[in-house]
Amino acid sequence: MTARGTDDPAKGRDQPLATVGNPLPRVNGTRLWQSLMTMAQIGATPGGGSNRLALTDADRTGRDLFVKWCQEAGCKVRIDAIGNIFARRHGRLASSPPILMGSHLDTQATGGWFDGVYGVLAALEVIRSLNDADAQTDYPLEAVVWTNEEGARFPPAMMGSAVWAGVQSIEFAHSRTDKDGIRVDDELRRIGYLGEFSCKAYPARAAFEVHIEQGPVLELAGKQIGVVTGIQGVRWLEININGESCHAGTTPMDARRDPIRALAKLIPDFFEAVDQCKPLARLTIGRLTTSPGAFNTVPSTATLTVDVRHPDMTVLDHLVRTFEDRLEVNCKLHGVGFSIHTELKCSPVGFSVECIAAIDRAATRYGYAKMHMISGAAHDSMHLAGVVPTAMIFVPCEGGISHNAAERARPEDLEAGCNVLLGTALSLP
Amino acid sequence: MTARGTDDPAKGRDQPLATVGNPLPRVNGTRLWQSLMTMAQIGATPGGGSNRLALTDADRTGRDLFVKWCQEAGCKVRIDAIGNIFARRHGRLASSPPILMGSHLDTQATGGWFDGVYGVLAALEVIRSLNDADAQTDYPLEAVVWTNEEGARFPPAMMGSAVWAGVQSIEFAHSRTDKDGIRVDDELRRIGYLGEFSCKAYPARAAFEVHIEQGPVLELAGKQIGVVTGIQGVRWLEININGESCHAGTTPMDARRDPIRALAKLIPDFFEAVDQCKPLARLTIGRLTTSPGAFNTVPSTATLTVDVRHPDMTVLDHLVRTFEDRLEVNCKLHGVGFSIHTELKCSPVGFSVECIAAIDRAATRYGYAKMHMISGAAHDSMHLAGVVPTAMIFVPCEGGISHNAAERARPEDLEAGCNVLLGTALSLP
Repeated sequence: MTARGTDDPAKGRDQPLATVGNPLPRVNGTRLWQSLMTMAQIGATPGGGSNRLALTDADRTGRDLFVKWCQEAGCKVRIDAIGNIFARRHGRLASSPPILMGSHLDTQATGGWFDGVYGVLAALEVIRSLNDADAQTDYPLEAVVWTNEEGARFPPAMMGSAVWAGVQSIEFAHSRTDKDGIRVDDELRRIGYLGEFSCKAYPARAAFEVHIEQGPVLELAGKQIGVVTGIQGVRWLEININGESCHAGTTPMDARRDPIRALAKLIPDFFEAVDQCKPLARLTIGRLTTSPGAFNTVPSTATLTVDVRHPDMTVLDHLVRTFEDRLEVNCKLHGVGFSIHTELKCSPVGFSVECIAAIDRAATRYGYAKMHMISGAAHDSMHLAGVVPTAMIFVPCEGGISHNAAERARPEDLEAGCNVLLGTALSLP
Repeated sequence: MTARGTDDPAKGRDQPLATVGNPLPRVNGTRLWQSLMTMAQIGATPGGGSNRLALTDADRTGRDLFVKWCQEAGCKVRIDAIGNIFARRHGRLASSPPILMGSHLDTQATGGWFDGVYGVLAALEVIRSLNDADAQTDYPLEAVVWTNEEGARFPPAMMGSAVWAGVQSIEFAHSRTDKDGIRVDDELRRIGYLGEFSCKAYPARAAFEVHIEQGPVLELAGKQIGVVTGIQGVRWLEININGESCHAGTTPMDARRDPIRALAKLIPDFFEAVDQCKPLARLTIGRLTTSPGAFNTVPSTATLTVDVRHPDMTVLDHLVRTFEDRLEVNCKLHGVGFSIHTELKCSPVGFSVECIAAIDRAATRYGYAKMHMISGAAHDSMHLAGVVPTAMIFVPCEGGISHNAAERARPEDLEAGCNVLLGTALSLP
């Protein structure tokens, strides 16, 4: 594929931007950084973060600014029924399916400057750079904002991409409420983003999402580009172990039904199982509580949450079965009962081999140190991958910190990721 | 020692009630039960419990009833500066030190019918029975109510006996406040129990406290009387393990500083140390929490409370040192920090050998199945033992349940304990 000037379709036809031997097309890293910093001021929080919870006034202000920038860049903007924003730069062939590039503008309440925003403004920067170069592409390019990726105000997360990909119904999404009982559709209408277009996947050549890694892998490995080959599967289990509350002083050890005795063996067993599936398996016991929770009372109940992840469904299933088995054995041994509730179950997603190869080629051509990796977090691309050839590009973020005012990324890394996005989009046949 | 009729000092002098070969003196079990059930109605709670938190109106009503009963039984009642009530039945020798028999009338908010109350009303029943028998004792007998044993409204617990024994100052006790900021001295004044007598130990021949066991040992052993030889020592430790919060999906296992990894090894290590000091050592991990406590976030902090008990100070110290050592080793291994805070430190108490022997003899004479045991819980007797020869008598309670509306004890067991109290008091030389 080639990219050419738009003022005179004939002019650049024999000067493809992205073929070997020619100068590489490059984005304007300074402009990208400036647009990120301008957006960061909307909903700015003390300590250097941003709070643009989905469908709030701050989210509207951010969306309005993005739409204005896209229109100034000559894009045609459409809004769909869940508020997803599609800003199209026409390609040479009007009937070609577009290449989607995007992410989200909403943040956590304690959000940072880059999570999601970077993927959206990088897509805009690709379009602006092509405009600067007067370049035309075969495929139309669309910079996309997916509504409510975080799910922090309106669970579940990744709402806009889920509805678009047919994973959730528009009625379900519209009827979700925040903690004050306010509905998604009412808020969409209030902020002016209840669009006229129906929210439904349409044919697209590919979808790319560039994102900060939100983990420490690239930084630790000294790589600038992560070629993301898929998203690991995840299970959330809530486990309750039920014993009998009694007095810490008066009850002999052998007369107790103490859930902590089962827990004491269980947690090492869980970690041991995960250690046997190194290095890809991940286990987090994020919440541990006891009830009633007094110094001098043997707890009646211990509750733990389990977040277990692996890119291979077979391994993930094996780990969950092992946990269930160890739970049963240890609880039986200590005379306590248990229950398990599955709170979340996401299958691993493998990205498009063609898209991965395109990113790989682009990163190589720009000379960036790169590595293949699995995304530890879920992203809108998880849903898109079910209906469009999809892949992601990661760049490092400082200390792997995200969802936090301390979220930081280096301008040169953000520029590199944006260049790879540009190069990838231009290289698709 | 002998007990004789009071109407005519000469009359019973040759008919000792409590010498071998004579009929055993016995309390009126029905009257004891009736007085317990009458007291239980003051502050009665749904589900069959009592709520007479210290120095509330319900506590006053209970105290007033007890004082009235004591006066009707011919006792002289004194109140001291912390509200302890001493109801004296004169002995043959006015100058003799009294035998103290008592416990507490205050309850937990979710209190039962017997905890404390039984020890107070059993003392009254001993006096009433001696009145019935027209018996005089050498030593004066005092039925005692120790103020605020539970500490549920005004921490710390065992306040009245602590001040009396010189463990706490009266100024400290008076200035304690409840959650609404109300002071102990103000409440004592309000309910009419800020007594004129100074609160200070005076010479006493002995102190006995009869109490429900609040544990399952007697019930499991099929014994009716527990001859309590001491109170185990206890340490409360709050342990914080400090790691680093990070994303459950994006952070490789080897890049984490997860406090749960240290905890996973620590809890089994603690239980192993305690299992090596079976059967007397007791370990309770009553509260386990993590922060921030989300499914998909590696906790920055895990907190656990440790309640460890043993009747032998050397063993208790050894266990605490072992815990500290294991904590240091495991935290170092997993790259996390820690802190330990000692919340409570009570040394083991050994009761008076003479008092224990007296209880032993009495239980044997009445023919009750008995066993020696250590008290798992703290009681007023813990403080008294420092200034007066002291011991305790336990009777079984159903399932070991206490501090609960479901706290139950059998009338025949309560009567047995009261008989042993009577027999013990009469047997002291």
